[in-house]
Amino acid sequence: MKGVGFILESDVVVMKLTEMNKETLEQFLSDCKAQYAAFQAENLKLDMSRGKPSPKQLELSMDLMDCLKRDDYRAENGLDLRNYGVLDGIPEAKEFFSNMLGVSADETIVFGNSSLNIMYWVMSVAMTNGVMGGKPWAKQPKLKFLCPVPGYDRHFAVTEFFGFEMINVPMNEDGPDMDMIEKLVAEDDTIKGVWCVPMYSNPDGVVYSDEVVKRFAALKPKAEDFRIFWDNAYCVHHLVDNPPVQANLLEEAKKAGNEDICYMFASTSKITFPGCGISIIAASKNNIASLKKSMGFATIGFDKLNQLRHLRFFDGKFENLVAHMSKHKDLIAPKFAIVENTLESELKDLDIATWSDPKGGYFISFNQAGCAKRIVALCKEAGVVLTGAGASFPYGNDPKDENIRLSPTFPTEEELQKAMNVFVCSAKIAAAEKLIG
Amino acid sequence: MKGVGFILESDVVVMKLTEMNKETLEQFLSDCKAQYAAFQAENLKLDMSRGKPSPKQLELSMDLMDCLKRDDYRAENGLDLRNYGVLDGIPEAKEFFSNMLGVSADETIVFGNSSLNIMYWVMSVAMTNGVMGGKPWAKQPKLKFLCPVPGYDRHFAVTEFFGFEMINVPMNEDGPDMDMIEKLVAEDDTIKGVWCVPMYSNPDGVVYSDEVVKRFAALKPKAEDFRIFWDNAYCVHHLVDNPPVQANLLEEAKKAGNEDICYMFASTSKITFPGCGISIIAASKNNIASLKKSMGFATIGFDKLNQLRHLRFFDGKFENLVAHMSKHKDLIAPKFAIVENTLESELKDLDIATWSDPKGGYFISFNQAGCAKRIVALCKEAGVVLTGAGASFPYGNDPKDENIRLSPTFPTEEELQKAMNVFVCSAKIAAAEKLIG
Repeated sequence: MKGVGFILESDVVVMKLTEMNKETLEQFLSDCKAQYAAFQAENLKLDMSRGKPSPKQLELSMDLMDCLKRDDYRAENGLDLRNYGVLDGIPEAKEFFSNMLGVSADETIVFGNSSLNIMYWVMSVAMTNGVMGGKPWAKQPKLKFLCPVPGYDRHFAVTEFFGFEMINVPMNEDGPDMDMIEKLVAEDDTIKGVWCVPMYSNPDGVVYSDEVVKRFAALKPKAEDFRIFWDNAYCVHHLVDNPPVQANLLEEAKKAGNEDICYMFASTSKITFPGCGISIIAASKNNIASLKKSMGFATIGFDKLNQLRHLRFFDGKFENLVAHMSKHKDLIAPKFAIVENTLESELKDLDIATWSDPKGGYFISFNQAGCAKRIVALCKEAGVVLTGAGASFPYGNDPKDENIRLSPTFPTEEELQKAMNVFVCSAKIAAAEKLIG
Repeated sequence: MKGVGFILESDVVVMKLTEMNKETLEQFLSDCKAQYAAFQAENLKLDMSRGKPSPKQLELSMDLMDCLKRDDYRAENGLDLRNYGVLDGIPEAKEFFSNMLGVSADETIVFGNSSLNIMYWVMSVAMTNGVMGGKPWAKQPKLKFLCPVPGYDRHFAVTEFFGFEMINVPMNEDGPDMDMIEKLVAEDDTIKGVWCVPMYSNPDGVVYSDEVVKRFAALKPKAEDFRIFWDNAYCVHHLVDNPPVQANLLEEAKKAGNEDICYMFASTSKITFPGCGISIIAASKNNIASLKKSMGFATIGFDKLNQLRHLRFFDGKFENLVAHMSKHKDLIAPKFAIVENTLESELKDLDIATWSDPKGGYFISFNQAGCAKRIVALCKEAGVVLTGAGASFPYGNDPKDENIRLSPTFPTEEELQKAMNVFVCSAKIAAAEKLIG
């Protein structure tokens, strides 16, 4: 498909939208609207709103349904995993999943199916009982949290729920603005933490540079109970064959004599089945000991058979997990290509927007100043659901109304192409409307 | 086995310990100690400390390992349960498990494997964000919680963790002392709740009478954010063929115009596999709506395949769950009989202790004033681990040092008989030592 705006009658016109004269621009808008009306007439129902694996991706993990055999319910140490016990995860699961975060088994706790749930819980414990014996956050008069933007809406929702004032920190190409973060945390002891998705950030796909990782590791916050919430959700979710290798935060923090500075999180949600996976936290031994103590009040232990099921699925070999992720890549990389090719061919020469070119993760971040809400609304009216405009900012407030998170994984390639056609058409309409005023 | 104290040389002496003269008592103690030394020489390693199903009980649920077939991953409404979504449980799981608490499906939320985890979470939400929009508990200067005693140590641990002052409420034969509870909650708005195990209380095995249930349902606490934490952990865990039927708290609360007064909890932990089950909360629609709103910050949803697995295991029929519980009864009722028979034959005539005769649940509650710590210590030194003395009281403080919770389910019958022999021998030693002074 060749997009409206390029074709006016039979002549191909390729030019920046800002360079069009009024008449051309009005014709452009009119053509786009005609195309949009045609999309509407199709009664589409497409969803690009969330980072959700497709059914084909789930098929990769079907052995999870029956890889745990009837008589297979003991840990290597003989423990009966059907019964109560084992607060912090079975030893072999700790060993296996510690590889995801590049730490040792005794620096991890294995939880249930949701790393978001661990993040929420860790924060709730800090609220009610403090961090490693410190004053409970809920007893402190003012709480602030640093939020690199654009970022993950569910992170911001948790900090909003707990009453934090969230401070936007701009993202650069190599990670968040560290000058700003270093300055703020050194000065203000009401700042208790920072949200990070260090590998293929949500939604920008940024891979924090080693320098940024090291600067995080060496942070000297005024607040003793400050923690980096390092959500490594996409640590093995590459879209390229030779993925970037990143410095390890906990390792760097140890070198800096600062090992208690961080909590790291990961899960199998986008590796096996999102609803039925395994999640882990990694942190210094001090942090882990303190968390385990608190954890003992909250549960007797998580589903240990599901931990064993995952070990059986990967045959206990981490290289099998890596190989498994390569199959995911084969399924989703073509979808990312559809999004990028459509944006490239339809919008690039118009010079109305920019977008990311991620090497991994689940999202493409799209920016068109002053147009995000309008584009999302236009898409919705044509049957294409996107993540809400503003969702990637604290309080849903995107100051420039520019960012839209595109999630290409769930739809089929055909659906995705259709959705992207609607998207670029909507982007053009929004841009033209804005110029015409 | 006939116990020491009854047999002095060849003469059978049956008398109250308090009626023995000094010489007889010293001979009694000496005989008991000889028997105790013989137990010690056996190097026993027996555990009666926790309410844990035995391997034979777990065998009842082995179909859970493979009843969910490879292609069986959709809810009745077609939803793919492998993927993200469904915060409050799949509809058929809500429908099924609502039967456990005698409520309707829309009065429940289905969680992961731990009802303790729900209780903790509900309380943590109240701490940080208040109850149904009320002032967060953590922002209130003083917090108290009512604790019927003896009770469940993990309940008390949660309230202690959150900094509550715990107030002991005596248990009567029909439930907690309601006069005291009604008076206290009407006067004191720092009292935020009460722990209850209404059916086969832990450890006393008390079944709250309908009158007690109705008085709970009609409570008029001064604190608007007061809640009854109704842990119906043993609601289907009967030891007799014609179990008692109890009035339903939520139903009674509705009649009293008081439906928001309670949270009710249950789980399959002692029905299928303790480590890998399903837990639920039930409450008024107002409470459920408020909890669901909070829950959305804490997770994307619990393991839905495990919900389906449980439905398949019971073939979706609640009567199958009831029949399944009858098989548990067949396995554990003989164990309760061993405990009761041993206590009866060995201790009754000595008149040194009392114990419960539960119709269900997991425990026998044993009382011997001033001797609990000594008995537990003696048992431990002879290789029999019991729940710690004092564990059934807040702060581990049993004012009369009298209560010991006996958990007969986990050991084999042979092990249990051996453990009980050690137990009654220890009880006799403790009693005699106390009388001799």
